[in-house]
Amino acid sequence: MVKIAVMGFGIVGSGVVEVLAENSAGITRRTGTEIAVKYILDIIDGKDSPFANMIIKDFSIIENDPEVKIVVETIGGVGAAYDFTKRSLLAGKSVITSNKELVATKGLELMAIAKEKNVNYLFEASVGGGIPIIRPIGQCIAANEIDEIYGILNGTTNYILTEMIECGTSFEDALKQAQAKGYAESNPTADVEGFDACRKISILSNLCFGRNVDPDSLSVKGISDVELLDVECAESLGYKIKLLGRAVRTGEDKITAYVEPHLMSASALLANVNGVMNAIVIKGNAVGELMFYGPGAGKRPTASAVIADVIDAAKHLAARKCYGWDEGFDGYVTDSAELVTHWYLRVSDKSKAVSAFADAEFVECAALVEGEVILITSPLTRKEMENASSAIEVRASYRILD
Amino acid sequence: MVKIAVMGFGIVGSGVVEVLAENSAGITRRTGTEIAVKYILDIIDGKDSPFANMIIKDFSIIENDPEVKIVVETIGGVGAAYDFTKRSLLAGKSVITSNKELVATKGLELMAIAKEKNVNYLFEASVGGGIPIIRPIGQCIAANEIDEIYGILNGTTNYILTEMIECGTSFEDALKQAQAKGYAESNPTADVEGFDACRKISILSNLCFGRNVDPDSLSVKGISDVELLDVECAESLGYKIKLLGRAVRTGEDKITAYVEPHLMSASALLANVNGVMNAIVIKGNAVGELMFYGPGAGKRPTASAVIADVIDAAKHLAARKCYGWDEGFDGYVTDSAELVTHWYLRVSDKSKAVSAFADAEFVECAALVEGEVILITSPLTRKEMENASSAIEVRASYRILD
Repeated sequence: MVKIAVMGFGIVGSGVVEVLAENSAGITRRTGTEIAVKYILDIIDGKDSPFANMIIKDFSIIENDPEVKIVVETIGGVGAAYDFTKRSLLAGKSVITSNKELVATKGLELMAIAKEKNVNYLFEASVGGGIPIIRPIGQCIAANEIDEIYGILNGTTNYILTEMIECGTSFEDALKQAQAKGYAESNPTADVEGFDACRKISILSNLCFGRNVDPDSLSVKGISDVELLDVECAESLGYKIKLLGRAVRTGEDKITAYVEPHLMSASALLANVNGVMNAIVIKGNAVGELMFYGPGAGKRPTASAVIADVIDAAKHLAARKCYGWDEGFDGYVTDSAELVTHWYLRVSDKSKAVSAFADAEFVECAALVEGEVILITSPLTRKEMENASSAIEVRASYRILD
Repeated sequence: MVKIAVMGFGIVGSGVVEVLAENSAGITRRTGTEIAVKYILDIIDGKDSPFANMIIKDFSIIENDPEVKIVVETIGGVGAAYDFTKRSLLAGKSVITSNKELVATKGLELMAIAKEKNVNYLFEASVGGGIPIIRPIGQCIAANEIDEIYGILNGTTNYILTEMIECGTSFEDALKQAQAKGYAESNPTADVEGFDACRKISILSNLCFGRNVDPDSLSVKGISDVELLDVECAESLGYKIKLLGRAVRTGEDKITAYVEPHLMSASALLANVNGVMNAIVIKGNAVGELMFYGPGAGKRPTASAVIADVIDAAKHLAARKCYGWDEGFDGYVTDSAELVTHWYLRVSDKSKAVSAFADAEFVECAALVEGEVILITSPLTRKEMENASSAIEVRASYRILD
């Protein structure tokens, strides 16, 4: 039997405890031993919980109990979660987390401690919720040099965009719907402005390209400026607007990573990932293109990913998994503005636009305001696009994913 | 350094050797040691190959060389591949294979030998080509009880169906195109009649539900009877026809598995998997629905999956991976005819059909022959559907995937 502690009894933590109980027979069979929750750390009393007898408030009980070999951290944030994770690792316990903020900002340090202590720090649930993605990158495509990874990494924004695309709902109304359904928080900034997706693409970039990226250094643009007009025009051109986190190898030991809404061909599989679902595309030099699709959040899907890590850690109490990455360095992350793509531009003045973008394709759209025109540029960096459009009013601009 | 042998220098085997050479720096870094090919076993001379100095014709050289720790079997079939795999395992070597026929028919025996000898028999490449699927099932969703798995498991038939759907090409012409492009063999029976997909769904079923299924015992229907008329009518009803391998839990320690063309909603993600690409959907009781998409065949994608197993085996020379399943038993696999679904039926006589299927939905389609009608039944087993339609001429019948 392996004893574990769960820190944080919110949505994910309670899902972990419940799924462990519900599927215990199969989990025991597949692990080769029983996984038993000994403590649940939370500030709640939990008197009414069927797990009330396990709830404690003092972390040092976990820290000082040598019987606890694995600690699940589902607290979130970088305060207590960081402190307790570090102390758990230093106490020789493996830690499993769903905390993308902590992995993205402190992962390098925590993995170094785990290595020193010969324990595991695993984080399958930190990206893509229930979608297996960390382990597939680390193991299943290890024969490849990865050229690019991108995906729909945030369910809230994908729900809002899907409502805008399929029902013609405005951003503001779609956000209210998402809040009413519990898909968006009352303060939706982290989701809507792309910060959540930024942490996830940072972690994916670290794994795929082998060096640490500071999420705060990346260019991030969310969806709060997306207008229905552009959703409609994009549709008439055969595109859908999707918020993507994207990381691309740009040279020998150089990458770029960023988050922003893109136009994608409506026939691309990723463009058909709707609602709160997530999906991640990886391009490897041997395998070609792969896509992983599933629920990117939620109690039971996230618990599924957390418990997969718990099982793995329980089977390898004496062995270390080798997920990890090295330090970054100055110049490793290049400016995403240098990335060359076609652009969708909605501009105010066709005659000026024609002279500014001689080789662009100009298209009409019924929804346009008098005098506006849409153009699809030839492949340009952001700077080239902005320089060429300096004399015209650009009312909307989107990268087009090829 | 870990020395390996590659048996069979055809498309997949040569891909393995080439990708190992091309990506050797990254593979060495991720493995923690170099993986070096010592022998290539093939009946060819290979004088012009850059790997000519490694090519041997006598398996016993590999068998008797204690330096060779891992053997890659890319011979195919159950003749020499079976013999050499068994002897390699008995000689204490791990074996990695892309051979779905061998895994589906002899996997249980070969895994037992591997267990006895404390070596690994790994087969990520046997299903879904380059798509990571075996390891995700074994590890990433180990917290789940799996309810169902299905997918597009054969690229040749998906290419043919895609041509029929998108270009209105007849089955015969689409098959000729597939042969001209090298996607179909000159004798296409194994692909077109569903036998290849059957081996793959057998392996997936074994992994997901834990017991061995005899692929020869499953109901298998391919696509050679699919008519353009039904492709068109399905489209007008919002469906696409896709060949699916499917395995479903039907009770306590009971499953069913089969291969046949299905109608699926055109808006389902899987219905938008086109051409030679494959995709597999898994439904787990914690995670919900996942989909894994990628190239289901081809030299480099398959090599990517084989090498992932080689890396895993090289990192765990002294440890065993726990993929495997138990013996089946009489009554474990139930008749797929008992599975309840809606049915699409094209029948000759509307008035008789109306009395036979009182609660069906009757639909018209411009492409129908005079007097024909299409109906969508209420949920029925195959036997119920066949009984109800005994008095009418059924010209086409397809299960509808809900």
